[in-house]
Amino acid sequence: MGFATLRFVQGRLLQICSLLFLTPILVAVFYRETLAALMSFGLVAAVLFLLGSLMTLRRPGRVRLRISEGMVTTFMTWLLVSLAGAFAFMLAGEIPSFVDAFFESVSGLTTTGSTILTDVEKMAHFALFWRSFTHFVGGMGVLVFAFILETDTSADSVNLMKAEMPGPYFGKLVSRIRKTAIILYAIYFVMTLLTILLLILGGMPVFDSLIHGLGAAGTGGFSSKNASIGFYNSSYINWVLTVAMVLFGVNFQVYFMALKRGIRQAVRSEELRWYLGIYLGVSLLLGLSVYPQSPSAGHALEHSFFTVSSIMSTTGYATQNFALWPLVSQMLILFVMLLGASAGSTGGGLKVSRFVIYLKSAKAHITRSRDPRQVVAIRLDGEILSGERKQSVLRYLCLYLLFLGLGTVLLSLDSPDLMTAFSSAATAVNNVGPGLAAVGPASNFSAFKPFTKIVMSFLMLGGRLELLPLLLFFSPKTWKRTS
Amino acid sequence: MGFATLRFVQGRLLQICSLLFLTPILVAVFYRETLAALMSFGLVAAVLFLLGSLMTLRRPGRVRLRISEGMVTTFMTWLLVSLAGAFAFMLAGEIPSFVDAFFESVSGLTTTGSTILTDVEKMAHFALFWRSFTHFVGGMGVLVFAFILETDTSADSVNLMKAEMPGPYFGKLVSRIRKTAIILYAIYFVMTLLTILLLILGGMPVFDSLIHGLGAAGTGGFSSKNASIGFYNSSYINWVLTVAMVLFGVNFQVYFMALKRGIRQAVRSEELRWYLGIYLGVSLLLGLSVYPQSPSAGHALEHSFFTVSSIMSTTGYATQNFALWPLVSQMLILFVMLLGASAGSTGGGLKVSRFVIYLKSAKAHITRSRDPRQVVAIRLDGEILSGERKQSVLRYLCLYLLFLGLGTVLLSLDSPDLMTAFSSAATAVNNVGPGLAAVGPASNFSAFKPFTKIVMSFLMLGGRLELLPLLLFFSPKTWKRTS
Repeated sequence: MGFATLRFVQGRLLQICSLLFLTPILVAVFYRETLAALMSFGLVAAVLFLLGSLMTLRRPGRVRLRISEGMVTTFMTWLLVSLAGAFAFMLAGEIPSFVDAFFESVSGLTTTGSTILTDVEKMAHFALFWRSFTHFVGGMGVLVFAFILETDTSADSVNLMKAEMPGPYFGKLVSRIRKTAIILYAIYFVMTLLTILLLILGGMPVFDSLIHGLGAAGTGGFSSKNASIGFYNSSYINWVLTVAMVLFGVNFQVYFMALKRGIRQAVRSEELRWYLGIYLGVSLLLGLSVYPQSPSAGHALEHSFFTVSSIMSTTGYATQNFALWPLVSQMLILFVMLLGASAGSTGGGLKVSRFVIYLKSAKAHITRSRDPRQVVAIRLDGEILSGERKQSVLRYLCLYLLFLGLGTVLLSLDSPDLMTAFSSAATAVNNVGPGLAAVGPASNFSAFKPFTKIVMSFLMLGGRLELLPLLLFFSPKTWKRTS
Repeated sequence: MGFATLRFVQGRLLQICSLLFLTPILVAVFYRETLAALMSFGLVAAVLFLLGSLMTLRRPGRVRLRISEGMVTTFMTWLLVSLAGAFAFMLAGEIPSFVDAFFESVSGLTTTGSTILTDVEKMAHFALFWRSFTHFVGGMGVLVFAFILETDTSADSVNLMKAEMPGPYFGKLVSRIRKTAIILYAIYFVMTLLTILLLILGGMPVFDSLIHGLGAAGTGGFSSKNASIGFYNSSYINWVLTVAMVLFGVNFQVYFMALKRGIRQAVRSEELRWYLGIYLGVSLLLGLSVYPQSPSAGHALEHSFFTVSSIMSTTGYATQNFALWPLVSQMLILFVMLLGASAGSTGGGLKVSRFVIYLKSAKAHITRSRDPRQVVAIRLDGEILSGERKQSVLRYLCLYLLFLGLGTVLLSLDSPDLMTAFSSAATAVNNVGPGLAAVGPASNFSAFKPFTKIVMSFLMLGGRLELLPLLLFFSPKTWKRTS
């Protein structure tokens, strides 16, 4: 660990992140909440910038981050921004308890969308905006964003991006990464704007459209209404968001490819096909399972497609209290909750591409038992995965299961039943938002003890950054001084 | 698939298995239930032997089984013996419903010990004996037993054993396999006899001691009492069985090694150390978690050690209704339920050695993230695992999770809550016995619908044979005719 480099990069990142804390002030001006916003977000922005400036006063000779240093820096930045957000919530008087404010802050930035607030509707506009804005920022990766702004850091800062971009990286876009990132961000901005516009066209108030558009874009899930999207009771809004959430769960390289080489080339992506296939399959099965208690087939399908969209993309909006659906419906929801969205999307979870590799590995195990001399290759997009890549994806599964398992055990200390404990852990690790049973979409996480909320916060952080940054941060070996 | 070979081997196995069905008649003679036993088990034995004789009339030129053929034969034998056992239960008038009889039969042979009987105490002695005898036979592998009896089958029948012996085979005992198997069986017999004797010495009636000794040996769990071991309310009996169950969950190669090279060499086994370490750790944690609601610390420890012994060895005896324990206690029970016993023991589950490899893989993932150029070797017993072995164990995890996940979803169609559905699937796949929530140790599986019972039966069969034999049996590709 090179501490001088770490200090310098960390300082520069804090400076950039401090700018983010100015955005809610713009909203506050519009809604005449300026003073409260200045005294909270303004203050935090100033402190962060000052801190960052102090840390970057002395420039180290070498600004090169090793991949593990990149990961640790990433984790620390996410942790610091979450802490800063928590202080802002407290200073604004919106969330008095530190643990609650930290939980809410982490939940926003990690695009989880789980809340400890029992009544979001009484919140100030700038605070509501900030919650959803952190979804937007956290979705694509705040450091990727910082990386674009930051021009004088060396190309090795790619290691920051690697830690923050979800999925097992099968893309071929590593070269000219800065230019690519700008294009990806442009796509992201345009898609977000379109979603907001379509919501406004459907009669959703402008502020609410902004909130829900940002939340869908980052696959976050914070709402400005206690009843989430169910508040509007509009099929148009439901379908707009259903489609939007699915689209934000697609690997953005698919859109990049579509722009560069045409849609026909882009839809060849194997992960895209699996993603859409699983999405359609589970939505239809879910529709079937809730049909007997639905007023009509259309109603069942509308809410099933919405729910699978919301959970599989790991957004977490709700139109119905699916915690009351039959157990088998809840199992389908748990399945897509664990699975999550595509690699390289703004969504969380295990990622569809990993799941496909696990499926193919399982199949390879059967094939090999038929003929043990046969070498079974696993292909993705037609290309054979290297042994190392395969092993890495399989090793990740072990790590993921241990993390999820330990999380479930810790949460069971404060849960009435397995469904509450497991769905809380799953919704946190996969950055979804609502759980099931006692923490379903009609409920929230306010009843948990502070210890449980802290555990969930770290599950969210760990899950969003795909575990390694968090684990390296807490590993003493990482902090040994090197040259 | 060579059908002539398959027919011949299958016939010979049926002949040998038919002998097993004669044993309950001996018990029946003693308890004056001879007629009922003859008209059920006697008849089934005769039919099996006749069928086997017909199938072996014409000897094929070549008696060589490929590994996949060995697996399919193994599965078919287990299925046929289960079906035969079901018919025997029905003919004896002990279990009238076919689905129930099949479930009970599979549960016995797979050493699961889940029951659909609401009152076992009114069963005939010979039927009670048969249930526990199938534990004993299924524990070490009925085909391994057949293999020892069968002298004229070629050495390739090792492939039958491979399908039946649980665990990822790290042993070095493949050569001189027949002699080794005889020694292992001798150890098994002696340990079983000792357990039975110690139970008799503790004042347990002789018949009950036989039942529970056989059940502990095979890590089965069927009892002759509705309250299981709790019926005797004896600390002596509890501790005898606690120790016995732990010992039957040890890899039998450890005992073999102890006989051949001394105990000091044997206890070097890494799996043994992990097994005992996890056993002690979880037992103490469980004791701690139930202590607040226990009459004394000694009481809490006694029942915690017993329960972990019972669940981790996948036996399934109960002294307490642990479904009423705190949720975190139940999570610990679920953990050891999934983990299971050692490879090469009579226990089921994922196996400790696999779990150790998963742990080491997770650790390797972290280590590699620190330095991606580093090659991370995974060692077991000091030896580096080959890439293929590592991948095979990791691929098995994928298959196992898919199987368990699909099972849970299917069982959720007929379960009131996640704990019932998941613990039913887990207890079946890992051949444990009791579940939690609605299927806890004070309850049974009689309330499930026939469909659910059939699903559980195949989960038990799949789990006992470690999935591949079942999956190959149901794969159309397996049944293509070859030279």
